[in-house]
Amino acid sequence: MSSWKTLSRRILLSHSKYLTVEEHSVELPDGRVIDNWPWIITPDFVNVVPVTSDNHFLLFRQEKYAIDGLSLAPVGGYLEAGEEPLHAAQRELLEEMGCAADEWVHLGSFKAGANRGIATGHLYLALGAQRVAEPDSDDLEEQERLCLSEREVEDALLNKEFKLVPWAANVGLALLALRRRR
Amino acid sequence: MSSWKTLSRRILLSHSKYLTVEEHSVELPDGRVIDNWPWIITPDFVNVVPVTSDNHFLLFRQEKYAIDGLSLAPVGGYLEAGEEPLHAAQRELLEEMGCAADEWVHLGSFKAGANRGIATGHLYLALGAQRVAEPDSDDLEEQERLCLSEREVEDALLNKEFKLVPWAANVGLALLALRRRR
Repeated sequence: MSSWKTLSRRILLSHSKYLTVEEHSVELPDGRVIDNWPWIITPDFVNVVPVTSDNHFLLFRQEKYAIDGLSLAPVGGYLEAGEEPLHAAQRELLEEMGCAADEWVHLGSFKAGANRGIATGHLYLALGAQRVAEPDSDDLEEQERLCLSEREVEDALLNKEFKLVPWAANVGLALLALRRRR
Repeated sequence: MSSWKTLSRRILLSHSKYLTVEEHSVELPDGRVIDNWPWIITPDFVNVVPVTSDNHFLLFRQEKYAIDGLSLAPVGGYLEAGEEPLHAAQRELLEEMGCAADEWVHLGSFKAGANRGIATGHLYLALGAQRVAEPDSDDLEEQERLCLSEREVEDALLNKEFKLVPWAANVGLALLALRRRR
Protein backbone atom coordinates (compact mmCIF):
# COMPACT_ATOMS: atom_id res chain seq x y z
CA MET A 1 0.00 0.00 0.00
CA SER A 2 1.00 3.63 -0.38
CA SER A 3 1.56 6.03 2.49
CA TRP A 4 -2.18 6.59 2.34
CA LYS A 5 -3.52 4.91 5.46
CA THR A 6 -6.57 2.65 5.43
CA LEU A 7 -8.48 3.58 8.61
CA SER A 8 -11.34 1.13 8.09
CA ARG A 9 -13.03 -0.95 5.43
CA ARG A 10 -16.52 -2.37 5.05
CA ILE A 11 -18.12 -4.61 2.45
CA LEU A 12 -20.69 -2.90 0.27
CA LEU A 13 -21.38 -5.82 -2.06
CA SER A 14 -20.41 -9.47 -1.77
CA HIS A 15 -21.52 -10.75 -5.17
CA SER A 16 -19.63 -13.99 -5.77
CA LYS A 17 -16.08 -15.26 -6.09
CA TYR A 18 -15.87 -12.94 -9.08
CA LEU A 19 -16.64 -9.67 -7.31
CA THR A 20 -16.56 -8.01 -3.90
CA VAL A 21 -16.89 -4.25 -3.45
CA GLU A 22 -15.63 -2.50 -0.33
CA GLU A 23 -15.68 1.08 0.87
CA HIS A 24 -12.55 2.31 2.63
CA SER A 25 -11.96 5.22 4.95
CA VAL A 26 -8.57 6.55 3.85
CA GLU A 27 -6.26 9.08 5.49
CA LEU A 28 -4.01 11.07 3.16
CA PRO A 29 -0.47 12.12 4.12
CA ASP A 30 -1.68 15.69 4.76
CA GLY A 31 -4.26 14.44 7.28
CA ARG A 32 -7.35 14.71 5.10
CA VAL A 33 -9.73 11.75 5.38
CA ILE A 34 -11.80 10.36 2.50
CA ASP A 35 -14.41 8.13 4.08
CA ASN A 36 -16.12 6.67 1.00
CA TRP A 37 -13.26 5.40 -1.19
CA PRO A 38 -14.59 2.53 -3.36
CA TRP A 39 -12.41 -0.57 -3.60
CA ILE A 40 -12.99 -3.42 -6.06
CA ILE A 41 -11.85 -7.04 -5.59
CA THR A 42 -11.91 -9.44 -8.54
CA PRO A 43 -9.78 -12.58 -9.05
CA ASP A 44 -6.09 -12.21 -9.79
CA PHE A 45 -5.13 -13.52 -13.22
CA VAL A 46 -2.25 -14.64 -15.42
CA ASN A 47 -1.50 -13.94 -19.06
CA VAL A 48 1.14 -15.83 -21.04
CA VAL A 49 2.74 -15.18 -24.43
CA PRO A 50 4.08 -18.58 -25.61
CA VAL A 51 6.90 -18.50 -28.17
CA THR A 52 8.19 -21.62 -29.92
CA SER A 53 11.87 -22.47 -30.37
CA ASP A 54 11.65 -21.20 -33.98
CA ASN A 55 10.27 -17.86 -32.72
CA HIS A 56 6.59 -18.24 -33.53
CA PHE A 57 3.95 -16.85 -31.19
CA LEU A 58 1.01 -19.04 -30.16
CA LEU A 59 -2.07 -16.88 -29.75
CA PHE A 60 -5.85 -16.89 -29.92
CA ARG A 61 -8.40 -15.01 -31.93
CA GLN A 62 -11.45 -14.90 -29.69
CA GLU A 63 -14.44 -13.08 -28.32
CA LYS A 64 -14.89 -11.72 -24.83
CA TYR A 65 -18.08 -10.29 -23.38
CA ALA A 66 -16.59 -6.83 -22.81
CA ILE A 67 -14.83 -6.60 -26.18
CA ASP A 68 -16.27 -5.37 -29.48
CA GLY A 69 -15.81 -8.05 -32.14
CA LEU A 70 -12.88 -10.43 -32.23
CA SER A 71 -9.52 -9.78 -30.58
CA LEU A 72 -6.13 -11.40 -30.67
CA ALA A 73 -5.25 -12.69 -27.20
CA PRO A 74 -2.51 -14.44 -25.26
CA VAL A 75 -3.20 -17.41 -22.99
CA GLY A 76 -4.90 -16.35 -19.78
CA GLY A 77 -7.09 -17.18 -16.84
CA TYR A 78 -7.81 -16.68 -13.17
CA LEU A 79 -5.65 -18.04 -10.38
CA GLU A 80 -7.32 -20.83 -8.45
CA ALA A 81 -7.63 -20.48 -4.67
CA GLY A 82 -4.16 -20.51 -3.10
CA GLU A 83 -2.45 -21.13 -6.43
CA GLU A 84 0.99 -19.66 -7.18
CA PRO A 85 1.02 -17.37 -10.25
CA LEU A 86 3.64 -19.40 -12.13
CA HIS A 87 1.67 -22.59 -11.54
CA ALA A 88 -1.46 -20.91 -12.87
CA ALA A 89 0.45 -19.72 -15.94
CA GLN A 90 1.76 -23.22 -16.64
CA ARG A 91 -1.68 -24.76 -16.04
CA GLU A 92 -3.40 -22.32 -18.39
CA LEU A 93 -0.79 -22.86 -21.12
CA LEU A 94 -1.39 -26.61 -20.88
CA GLU A 95 -5.20 -26.36 -20.71
CA GLU A 96 -5.69 -23.73 -23.40
CA MET A 97 -2.88 -24.61 -25.81
CA GLY A 98 -1.87 -28.14 -24.83
CA CYS A 99 1.67 -26.79 -24.44
CA ALA A 100 4.57 -26.81 -22.00
CA ALA A 101 7.58 -24.46 -22.16
CA ASP A 102 11.33 -24.75 -21.51
CA GLU A 103 11.83 -21.37 -19.80
CA TRP A 104 9.48 -18.99 -18.04
CA VAL A 105 10.17 -15.25 -17.92
CA HIS A 106 8.18 -13.25 -15.36
CA LEU A 107 7.44 -9.92 -17.08
CA GLY A 108 5.86 -8.41 -13.99
CA SER A 109 2.92 -8.49 -11.60
CA PHE A 110 0.81 -5.39 -12.08
CA LYS A 111 -2.24 -3.93 -10.41
CA ALA A 112 -5.17 -3.43 -12.76
CA GLY A 113 -6.48 -0.26 -11.09
CA ALA A 114 -4.39 2.49 -9.49
CA ASN A 115 -7.24 3.71 -7.29
CA ARG A 116 -9.60 0.73 -6.97
CA GLY A 117 -7.12 -2.16 -6.96
CA ILE A 118 -9.38 -4.57 -8.91
CA ALA A 119 -6.85 -7.43 -9.38
CA THR A 120 -3.21 -8.27 -9.86
CA GLY A 121 -2.23 -9.51 -13.32
CA HIS A 122 0.86 -11.72 -13.51
CA LEU A 123 2.35 -11.54 -17.01
CA TYR A 124 4.70 -14.16 -18.48
CA LEU A 125 6.73 -14.98 -21.54
CA ALA A 126 7.01 -18.76 -22.11
CA LEU A 127 10.02 -19.72 -24.25
CA GLY A 128 10.48 -22.99 -26.08
CA ALA A 129 6.75 -23.63 -26.05
CA GLN A 130 5.80 -26.96 -27.57
CA ARG A 131 2.69 -29.12 -27.89
CA VAL A 132 2.56 -31.94 -25.31
CA ALA A 133 -1.17 -32.71 -25.10
CA GLU A 134 -4.56 -31.91 -26.54
CA PRO A 135 -5.94 -28.58 -25.32
CA ASP A 136 -8.68 -29.03 -22.73
CA SER A 137 -10.03 -25.61 -21.88
CA ASP A 138 -13.22 -25.00 -19.92
CA ASP A 139 -13.51 -21.44 -21.24
CA LEU A 140 -16.95 -20.32 -22.28
CA GLU A 141 -15.70 -18.55 -25.40
CA GLU A 142 -14.88 -20.09 -28.73
CA GLN A 143 -11.22 -19.68 -29.62
CA GLU A 144 -9.24 -19.98 -32.83
CA ARG A 145 -5.56 -20.90 -32.36
CA LEU A 146 -2.96 -18.94 -34.34
CA CYS A 147 0.78 -19.28 -34.94
CA LEU A 148 2.25 -15.90 -35.92
CA SER A 149 5.73 -14.58 -36.67
CA GLU A 150 7.30 -11.95 -34.42
CA ARG A 151 6.76 -9.32 -37.10
CA GLU A 152 3.10 -10.28 -37.51
CA VAL A 153 2.58 -10.01 -33.75
CA GLU A 154 4.19 -6.56 -33.56
CA ASP A 155 2.14 -5.38 -36.54
CA ALA A 156 -1.04 -6.64 -34.91
CA LEU A 157 -0.19 -4.98 -31.58
CA LEU A 158 0.52 -1.60 -33.18
CA ASN A 159 -2.62 -2.07 -35.30
CA LYS A 160 -4.67 -2.32 -32.06
CA GLU A 161 -5.72 -5.95 -32.64
CA PHE A 162 -5.10 -6.92 -29.00
CA LYS A 163 -8.09 -5.13 -27.48
CA LEU A 164 -7.57 -5.60 -23.74
CA VAL A 165 -5.16 -3.56 -21.58
CA PRO A 166 -3.38 -6.57 -20.00
CA TRP A 167 -3.09 -8.33 -23.36
CA ALA A 168 -1.44 -5.27 -24.93
CA ALA A 169 0.86 -5.03 -21.90
CA ASN A 170 1.77 -8.71 -22.05
CA VAL A 171 2.54 -8.72 -25.78
CA GLY A 172 4.45 -5.44 -25.69
CA LEU A 173 6.57 -6.60 -22.75
CA ALA A 174 7.17 -9.99 -24.39
CA LEU A 175 8.46 -8.37 -27.60
CA LEU A 176 10.78 -6.02 -25.71
CA ALA A 177 12.05 -8.77 -23.38
CA LEU A 178 12.73 -11.11 -26.31
CA ARG A 179 14.81 -8.47 -28.10
CA ARG A 180 16.70 -7.58 -24.94
CA ARG A 181 17.82 -11.21 -24.65
CA ARG A 182 19.40 -11.24 -28.12
CA MET B 1 -20.11 -6.43 -27.66
CA SER B 2 -19.41 -10.04 -28.50
CA SER B 3 -21.94 -12.45 -29.92
CA TRP B 4 -22.91 -13.04 -26.32
CA LYS B 5 -26.33 -11.41 -26.00
CA THR B 6 -27.26 -9.18 -23.06
CA LEU B 7 -30.85 -10.18 -22.22
CA SER B 8 -31.28 -7.75 -19.32
CA ARG B 9 -29.29 -5.65 -16.88
CA ARG B 10 -29.99 -4.25 -13.45
CA ILE B 11 -28.02 -2.01 -11.11
CA LEU B 12 -26.71 -3.76 -7.99
CA LEU B 13 -24.74 -0.82 -6.59
CA SER B 14 -24.76 2.83 -7.58
CA HIS B 15 -21.89 4.13 -5.48
CA SER B 16 -20.77 7.40 -7.06
CA LYS B 17 -19.40 8.71 -10.34
CA TYR B 18 -16.45 6.42 -9.65
CA LEU B 19 -18.33 3.12 -9.49
CA THR B 20 -21.52 1.43 -10.61
CA VAL B 21 -22.03 -2.34 -10.47
CA GLU B 22 -24.59 -4.09 -12.65
CA GLU B 23 -25.71 -7.67 -13.00
CA HIS B 24 -26.41 -8.88 -16.51
CA SER B 25 -28.41 -11.81 -17.80
CA VAL B 26 -26.30 -13.08 -20.71
CA GLU B 27 -27.14 -15.60 -23.44
CA LEU B 28 -24.20 -17.54 -24.89
CA PRO B 29 -24.01 -18.55 -28.55
CA ASP B 30 -24.97 -22.14 -27.63
CA GLY B 31 -28.17 -20.94 -25.94
CA ARG B 32 -27.04 -21.24 -22.32
CA VAL B 33 -28.07 -18.32 -20.11
CA ILE B 34 -25.97 -16.93 -17.24
CA ASP B 35 -28.30 -14.74 -15.23
CA ASN B 36 -25.90 -13.27 -12.65
CA TRP B 37 -22.97 -11.94 -14.69
CA PRO B 38 -21.34 -9.08 -12.74
CA TRP B 39 -20.48 -5.93 -14.72
CA ILE B 40 -18.35 -3.07 -13.38
CA ILE B 41 -18.49 0.53 -14.59
CA THR B 42 -15.72 2.97 -13.62
CA PRO B 43 -14.63 6.13 -15.46
CA ASP B 44 -12.80 5.82 -18.76
CA PHE B 45 -9.25 7.14 -18.60
CA VAL B 46 -6.29 8.32 -20.67
CA ASN B 47 -2.59 7.66 -20.28
CA VAL B 48 0.06 9.60 -22.18
CA VAL B 49 3.80 9.00 -22.67
CA PRO B 50 5.29 12.41 -23.56
CA VAL B 51 8.59 12.39 -25.47
CA THR B 52 10.61 15.55 -26.15
CA SER B 53 12.18 16.46 -29.51
CA ASP B 54 15.55 15.21 -28.18
CA ASN B 55 13.96 11.85 -27.29
CA HIS B 56 13.61 12.17 -23.53
CA PHE B 57 10.59 10.73 -21.74
CA LEU B 58 8.68 12.89 -19.25
CA LEU B 59 7.38 10.68 -16.45
CA PHE B 60 6.39 10.65 -12.81
CA ARG B 61 7.54 8.77 -9.77
CA GLN B 62 4.49 8.59 -7.55
CA GLU B 63 2.30 6.74 -5.13
CA LYS B 64 -1.15 5.35 -5.77
CA TYR B 65 -3.49 3.87 -3.22
CA ALA B 66 -3.53 0.42 -4.82
CA ILE B 67 0.22 0.24 -5.47
CA ASP B 68 2.93 -0.97 -3.10
CA GLY B 69 5.57 1.72 -2.70
CA LEU B 70 6.52 4.13 -5.46
CA SER B 71 5.97 3.51 -9.16
CA LEU B 72 7.07 5.17 -12.35
CA ALA B 73 4.05 6.44 -14.24
CA PRO B 74 3.01 8.21 -17.42
CA VAL B 75 0.59 11.15 -17.44
CA GLY B 76 -2.97 10.04 -16.79
CA GLY B 77 -6.45 10.82 -15.62
CA TYR B 78 -10.16 10.29 -16.05
CA LEU B 79 -12.16 11.64 -18.94
CA GLU B 80 -14.55 14.40 -17.91
CA ALA B 81 -18.24 14.01 -18.77
CA GLY B 82 -18.67 14.09 -22.55
CA GLU B 83 -14.99 14.74 -23.17
CA GLU B 84 -13.20 13.34 -26.23
CA PRO B 85 -10.25 11.06 -25.33
CA LEU B 86 -7.68 13.13 -27.25
CA HIS B 87 -8.87 16.29 -25.52
CA ALA B 88 -8.55 14.59 -22.14
CA ALA B 89 -5.02 13.45 -23.04
CA GLN B 90 -4.01 16.98 -24.05
CA ARG B 91 -5.64 18.46 -20.94
CA GLU B 92 -3.90 16.02 -18.60
CA LEU B 93 -0.51 16.62 -20.25
CA LEU B 94 -0.97 20.36 -19.72
CA GLU B 95 -2.28 20.06 -16.15
CA GLU B 96 0.15 17.44 -14.88
CA MET B 97 3.30 18.37 -16.81
CA GLY B 98 2.64 21.91 -18.04
CA CYS B 99 3.35 20.58 -21.54
CA ALA B 100 1.93 20.63 -25.05
CA ALA B 101 3.02 18.32 -27.89
CA ASP B 102 3.52 18.64 -31.65
CA GLU B 103 2.12 15.27 -32.67
CA TRP B 104 -0.27 12.83 -31.00
CA VAL B 105 -0.13 9.09 -31.75
CA HIS B 106 -3.15 7.05 -30.64
CA LEU B 107 -1.71 3.74 -29.44
CA GLY B 108 -5.10 2.18 -28.89
CA SER B 109 -8.28 2.20 -26.82
CA PHE B 110 -8.43 -0.92 -24.70
CA LYS B 111 -10.94 -2.43 -22.31
CA ALA B 112 -9.57 -2.94 -18.81
CA GLY B 113 -11.53 -6.14 -18.08
CA ALA B 114 -12.38 -8.88 -20.58
CA ASN B 115 -15.33 -10.14 -18.57
CA ARG B 116 -16.39 -7.18 -16.38
CA GLY B 117 -15.68 -4.26 -18.72
CA ILE B 118 -14.55 -1.86 -15.95
CA ALA B 119 -13.36 1.02 -18.20
CA THR B 120 -11.80 1.89 -21.52
CA GLY B 121 -8.23 3.18 -21.38
CA HIS B 122 -7.13 5.42 -24.26
CA LEU B 123 -3.34 5.28 -24.61
CA TYR B 124 -1.26 7.94 -26.37
CA LEU B 125 2.28 8.82 -27.37
CA ALA B 126 2.86 12.60 -27.42
CA LEU B 127 5.80 13.61 -29.63
CA GLY B 128 7.66 16.92 -29.47
CA ALA B 129 6.47 17.51 -25.91
CA GLN B 130 7.58 20.86 -24.52
CA ARG B 131 6.91 22.97 -21.45
CA VAL B 132 4.39 25.75 -22.10
CA ALA B 133 3.04 26.49 -18.60
CA GLU B 134 3.40 25.66 -14.94
CA PRO B 135 1.86 22.30 -14.02
CA ASP B 136 -1.44 22.72 -12.19
CA SER B 137 -2.63 19.26 -11.20
CA ASP B 138 -5.45 18.60 -8.77
CA ASP B 139 -4.23 15.06 -8.12
CA LEU B 140 -4.29 13.91 -4.54
CA GLU B 141 -0.92 12.17 -4.77
CA GLU B 142 2.49 13.76 -4.54
CA GLN B 143 4.45 13.38 -7.75
CA GLU B 144 8.11 13.74 -8.68
CA ARG B 145 8.77 14.69 -12.30
CA LEU B 146 11.47 12.76 -14.18
CA CYS B 147 13.17 13.16 -17.56
CA LEU B 148 14.60 9.80 -18.70
CA SER B 149 16.38 8.54 -21.78
CA GLU B 150 14.74 5.91 -24.00
CA ARG B 151 17.17 3.29 -22.68
CA GLU B 152 16.43 4.22 -19.07
CA VAL B 153 12.69 3.89 -19.73
CA GLU B 154 13.05 0.47 -21.34
CA ASP B 155 15.28 -0.71 -18.48
CA ALA B 156 12.72 0.50 -15.93
CA LEU B 157 9.85 -1.17 -17.79
CA LEU B 158 11.62 -4.54 -18.00
CA ASN B 159 12.68 -4.08 -14.36
CA LYS B 160 8.95 -3.88 -13.39
CA GLU B 161 9.14 -0.27 -12.19
CA PHE B 162 5.86 0.68 -13.87
CA LYS B 163 3.51 -1.14 -11.51
CA LEU B 164 0.11 -0.71 -13.15
CA VAL B 165 -1.19 -2.73 -16.11
CA PRO B 166 -2.19 0.29 -18.27
CA TRP B 167 1.08 2.08 -17.51
CA ALA B 168 3.12 -0.95 -18.62
CA ALA B 169 0.94 -1.19 -21.75
CA ASN B 170 1.32 2.50 -22.54
CA VAL B 171 5.10 2.55 -22.12
CA GLY B 172 5.63 -0.71 -24.01
CA LEU B 173 3.48 0.44 -26.91
CA ALA B 174 5.17 3.85 -26.94
CA LEU B 175 8.64 2.28 -27.20
CA LEU B 176 7.57 -0.06 -30.01
CA ALA B 177 5.73 2.68 -31.90
CA LEU B 178 8.70 5.07 -31.64
CA ARG B 179 11.04 2.45 -33.09
CA ARG B 180 8.63 1.58 -35.87
CA ARG B 181 8.65 5.22 -36.99
CA ARG B 182 12.43 5.31 -37.46
